[in-house]
Amino acid sequence: MSHNTFGHLFRMTTWGESHGPALGCVVDGCPPGIPLEAAEIQAFLDKRRPGQSRFTTQRQEPDEVEILSGVFPDAEGRQVTTGTPISLMIRNVDQRSKDYGDISSKFRPGHADYTYWKKYGIRDFRGGGRSSARETAARVAAGAIARKVLAGVTIRGALVQMGNIKVDRSLWDWDTVNANPFFCPDAATAVHWAEYLDKVRKSGSSIGAVIEVIAEGVPAGWGAPIYGKLDQDIASAMMSINAVKGVEIGAGMDAAELTGEENADEIRIGRDGQPCFLSNHAGGILGGISTGQPIVCRFAVKPTSSILTPRKTIDLDGDETEVVTKGRHDPCVGIRAVPIGEAMLAVVLADHFLRHRAQIG
Amino acid sequence: MSHNTFGHLFRMTTWGESHGPALGCVVDGCPPGIPLEAAEIQAFLDKRRPGQSRFTTQRQEPDEVEILSGVFPDAEGRQVTTGTPISLMIRNVDQRSKDYGDISSKFRPGHADYTYWKKYGIRDFRGGGRSSARETAARVAAGAIARKVLAGVTIRGALVQMGNIKVDRSLWDWDTVNANPFFCPDAATAVHWAEYLDKVRKSGSSIGAVIEVIAEGVPAGWGAPIYGKLDQDIASAMMSINAVKGVEIGAGMDAAELTGEENADEIRIGRDGQPCFLSNHAGGILGGISTGQPIVCRFAVKPTSSILTPRKTIDLDGDETEVVTKGRHDPCVGIRAVPIGEAMLAVVLADHFLRHRAQIG
Amino acid sequence: MSHNTFGHLFRMTTWGESHGPALGCVVDGCPPGIPLEAAEIQAFLDKRRPGQSRFTTQRQEPDEVEILSGVFPDAEGRQVTTGTPISLMIRNVDQRSKDYGDISSKFRPGHADYTYWKKYGIRDFRGGGRSSARETAARVAAGAIARKVLAGVTIRGALVQMGNIKVDRSLWDWDTVNANPFFCPDAATAVHWAEYLDKVRKSGSSIGAVIEVIAEGVPAGWGAPIYGKLDQDIASAMMSINAVKGVEIGAGMDAAELTGEENADEIRIGRDGQPCFLSNHAGGILGGISTGQPIVCRFAVKPTSSILTPRKTIDLDGDETEVVTKGRHDPCVGIRAVPIGEAMLAVVLADHFLRHRAQIG
Amino acid sequence: MSHNTFGHLFRMTTWGESHGPALGCVVDGCPPGIPLEAAEIQAFLDKRRPGQSRFTTQRQEPDEVEILSGVFPDAEGRQVTTGTPISLMIRNVDQRSKDYGDISSKFRPGHADYTYWKKYGIRDFRGGGRSSARETAARVAAGAIARKVLAGVTIRGALVQMGNIKVDRSLWDWDTVNANPFFCPDAATAVHWAEYLDKVRKSGSSIGAVIEVIAEGVPAGWGAPIYGKLDQDIASAMMSINAVKGVEIGAGMDAAELTGEENADEIRIGRDGQPCFLSNHAGGILGGISTGQPIVCRFAVKPTSSILTPRKTIDLDGDETEVVTKGRHDPCVGIRAVPIGEAMLAVVLADHFLRHRAQIG
Repeated sequence: MSHNTFGHLFRMTTWGESHGPALGCVVDGCPPGIPLEAAEIQAFLDKRRPGQSRFTTQRQEPDEVEILSGVFPDAEGRQVTTGTPISLMIRNVDQRSKDYGDISSKFRPGHADYTYWKKYGIRDFRGGGRSSARETAARVAAGAIARKVLAGVTIRGALVQMGNIKVDRSLWDWDTVNANPFFCPDAATAVHWAEYLDKVRKSGSSIGAVIEVIAEGVPAGWGAPIYGKLDQDIASAMMSINAVKGVEIGAGMDAAELTGEENADEIRIGRDGQPCFLSNHAGGILGGISTGQPIVCRFAVKPTSSILTPRKTIDLDGDETEVVTKGRHDPCVGIRAVPIGEAMLAVVLADHFLRHRAQIG
Repeated sequence: MSHNTFGHLFRMTTWGESHGPALGCVVDGCPPGIPLEAAEIQAFLDKRRPGQSRFTTQRQEPDEVEILSGVFPDAEGRQVTTGTPISLMIRNVDQRSKDYGDISSKFRPGHADYTYWKKYGIRDFRGGGRSSARETAARVAAGAIARKVLAGVTIRGALVQMGNIKVDRSLWDWDTVNANPFFCPDAATAVHWAEYLDKVRKSGSSIGAVIEVIAEGVPAGWGAPIYGKLDQDIASAMMSINAVKGVEIGAGMDAAELTGEENADEIRIGRDGQPCFLSNHAGGILGGISTGQPIVCRFAVKPTSSILTPRKTIDLDGDETEVVTKGRHDPCVGIRAVPIGEAMLAVVLADHFLRHRAQIG
Repeated sequence: MSHNTFGHLFRMTTWGESHGPALGCVVDGCPPGIPLEAAEIQAFLDKRRPGQSRFTTQRQEPDEVEILSGVFPDAEGRQVTTGTPISLMIRNVDQRSKDYGDISSKFRPGHADYTYWKKYGIRDFRGGGRSSARETAARVAAGAIARKVLAGVTIRGALVQMGNIKVDRSLWDWDTVNANPFFCPDAATAVHWAEYLDKVRKSGSSIGAVIEVIAEGVPAGWGAPIYGKLDQDIASAMMSINAVKGVEIGAGMDAAELTGEENADEIRIGRDGQPCFLSNHAGGILGGISTGQPIVCRFAVKPTSSILTPRKTIDLDGDETEVVTKGRHDPCVGIRAVPIGEAMLAVVLADHFLRHRAQIG
Repeated sequence: MSHNTFGHLFRMTTWGESHGPALGCVVDGCPPGIPLEAAEIQAFLDKRRPGQSRFTTQRQEPDEVEILSGVFPDAEGRQVTTGTPISLMIRNVDQRSKDYGDISSKFRPGHADYTYWKKYGIRDFRGGGRSSARETAARVAAGAIARKVLAGVTIRGALVQMGNIKVDRSLWDWDTVNANPFFCPDAATAVHWAEYLDKVRKSGSSIGAVIEVIAEGVPAGWGAPIYGKLDQDIASAMMSINAVKGVEIGAGMDAAELTGEENADEIRIGRDGQPCFLSNHAGGILGGISTGQPIVCRFAVKPTSSILTPRKTIDLDGDETEVVTKGRHDPCVGIRAVPIGEAMLAVVLADHFLRHRAQIG
């Protein structure tokens, strides 16, 4: 992966700044003949869209997607993919540039302001420009197409930790995930989070989170050895999401505390005559290749650095100063990272599905 | 990254099986004019080499490296790189194939036996074949070259956790790292680990670990936005190492518990007139681009599944059975992962150093 | 190169069909700080634009380009590149779909209708869809940006052969190139071509051509050995243009008739104290690397297969039939290939300029 | 393609210098389960091997290939590919370094001496080092593997022009190709060439040539649009071969002289009920995708610049001088380019066969 393109056979190239005229992506490598309507993509964008509860930024970004290429009616008149690049565009509409005027000359700690400046010597400072999480709208759109490629695979995510409050896994219920503003899989924890996040929000602060994304229905044998490992590509995908600081597969960092006996997922033959594993510390991947079990990935998102407390920083002239980030920000950006994580997992799996079809290493 | 090649401008392609005649790599993109002797590469291979204490496998693998191309004497007669591909080869010598006879028809739980079989329909089962950690010798060799490219950058690693015993960071001493068989940065913990690992080893079991790798001297501005993020490539690199289940940058998974105030590393002007950060939760990377601070990465290695306790599994015929992995195995493969993690970080940084020189996005 | 992306460090990804809502490209890897206005890109699009004389198709395609991302005002208020992806979009406006109704079920010989059908099982048949030369508008736009990256390099092209009428090289005059509707470098030949092409056009036929593109100002040392050769990438670039059937560097196919004495361009020291070559059979490239001489490339474009004479073909049902291509077509598509060839050479050179800066192999 | 790697899914990475200890390649992406013996590769290397007649260099290069990885006995005991990288090595044995002593400080006109020096500042001057045609032995070896991947496809080549003497296509006979030292498909022309080349050889001169390579049995639908065109990749492959200055597909440069009526290959339904084309000006490729007809490619090879006549040049100090290339050189390097062209076509087709299996764009 490099620059602004992700993927090998199924690949997306994203473009656009937070406050430019538009943003979008080109999805290349999508097989032909797959029914695809803008509304199907829109459904996932709506899930990521801010302003849907008091717990996300109040910016209004309708995020309406246009399909500019790569689809055509088939013999039955359904709009299907043609195998050529699918260009998607989302116009930016709610650009209150005045909110950001102050940060044109100051580097916000924890944001990419300083590093973009050091790298490029110029930056579109409005809303973070290219480094803004606005870019992830394009990922979610591409992910919606990836899901269509992955017939038979179910990809779902949830927030599993906010600050130090973790969900109760014994109460996990996928239906609950879409029934609260946190993508929380456990109704009791959702109540605690609401209370907790209200405090964070009112104090002008922010908090980190952990997201878990799971893919079910991936058969054994997807992936590639050595430098095209499925878990490697998932790690790459998740770490490419803004604010992510850690990625785990299966047992994750806790694998350090396991013994060989505990960690080795034993294999039996199930009632259906198929191999089945007695546990899934591997997170569905061994040697970079899928085992047929659910693929389980987690990633930690740091708290946004856009907070109301003044922070020490420097300015373009190298003078010491302070900065406060006004504007309308997410007290817990991890919430909206759930559909983004799902999208990235879908993109990685679509890529490996195509590699699998090629039967290459 | 894909298949068996890692890197974009500085790239390594590895090849070879555990019990084949040899293994090696081709390092492509190394700039010309860099002095390079086989002995410099050998020094790092020796660090990874097993059989140096009772805490690693007793297999004897001299891992002697040959440089087959890409070097030539310069005007002063020193052997330097020519800018053409550097081919490195290590002959396999200690191949006790008989040790592995039993596993030709049984899938070892926790190993890649089952998934390679499902993907390829054929596998070199001797010692894990291509999925063996033998492949990492090639990485360490390539990493030694990457270090030469990275003048001014210091890359060091240490084991920071074995089982649930973590090092005492207040006692961290880089000199200690090379003075014990664990790459442990704290002498007191090294003593505890010795005692603990002896028990693990004698019981025929194994244990996981966490490795921390740090790069100092990387200036601000290396990295690329969006899908070529420095931390993304590091996550990809570390997750490509055998047995790794989690990767962290800076605060890592713990970032979930931080508030925005805690997480935003404030910036001041140091005594040298240069920007300096008051903390490094970012692990030296913001928006995928280096800040100039130390780059800090951790990864968790699961315990090897090669243990003496019988484990339930199935065989090639789909029948249920048990398997015991005899042979000579590492009770804590995390130890030897230290030089491998260093090598991978060096390879990623060499790649981004070249991208930086190209001044591209 | 693969799919719809061309380039390694400087890369363009194009998208869009002939009769879809729009087409465009994403230019990734453009260095920051380069002044860039839409008008500069437009100038090159206008050169390629049809309907400017009776010798090109009478379709009206204003080809107005929009810059959607990747630019921002610098400290002086000039719009410059930011180093992030530059997204360019051209709306399609003159889409007379009725002209193409007949070809929805018949394969036009010489066009990509049959092969797209065999590959994808579905195709946007309107105007050739993705296989239409409309796609080259995106290339020309990307090429305009590539030229800005290549300060000091002059890239110019001319039509040097139409049918069997070749230009008189002794009369070559770059000023003449833009003073006739053929990009002909020799005024006398332009007159002959006008007469000749009128006949071709009136008979509803078409004719092939040869284009020559030259880059001056490329210093010695650009290029890469073996599989990243400068001439290899040029050949790839030119052969990727619709209807191209042959590519030559320097002496080209005629190199077969040269002796070693004739072919070896001798070297002297010029009046400026710099190495100079006494001839340029090499076309400015030796071993895949630039010599400092002008880079000279030629490519042959076949006649368009859209002609008024009925041609034997088959239809979707596999029945034999005939097809006539009505609509408004170029009697010599080679003419409009001149700015396209220039653009592709610019893109290749911009890519190698960046590789050169990285000082890689 | 870039650096020293060619291919997208089926990819080869070559390494090694003319006078280093060895050269070789890593073939990555080869599907598993394909029977492969070193002897099968050796057969093609022997075809390229010099010193087999008085018309090629008298250097003795046994070019014995070793398979170092990527193969394993299958259940029947046959050695088959495992899907992991296949590392091939050829030891260099006939390295008369003394022959090349004179050229360490002088740039041979027509060779890559000057440009490698300008690019790298250092070069292995012995026999051209990395720029030597020795590298093509690795290509031929990789091509032998590619052929095994391409069951049902026949790839054959011939020399069709030497100097200005072309073969008589009416006498074309594939059996004749292997019955003379020129890969000449027409016995009468082989006699003329023998006489002609003896003169060239005795005078210490050299001469150029044209090679034609044909693939039969490629079904319709292989290839990719826009920047992954089959003909584009073929052009790239052929132009990457040392000394190639022009590449043609089908009608090639002569397409410039064709009318639309002549050029459009008409389609009928054959006796077998399958589409058949009445001509093949397209060379088996339309819109970058195979038509099912034979794929026809030609390329021109310049005469070697290693000749006995002194040529004007400069030396490392920038002084004017002359150089004579002694040693044992091919009077017509085009002859040995025949198996190389075949190999490169095989590599391109194997790559596209895998892409085809993935059913991507």
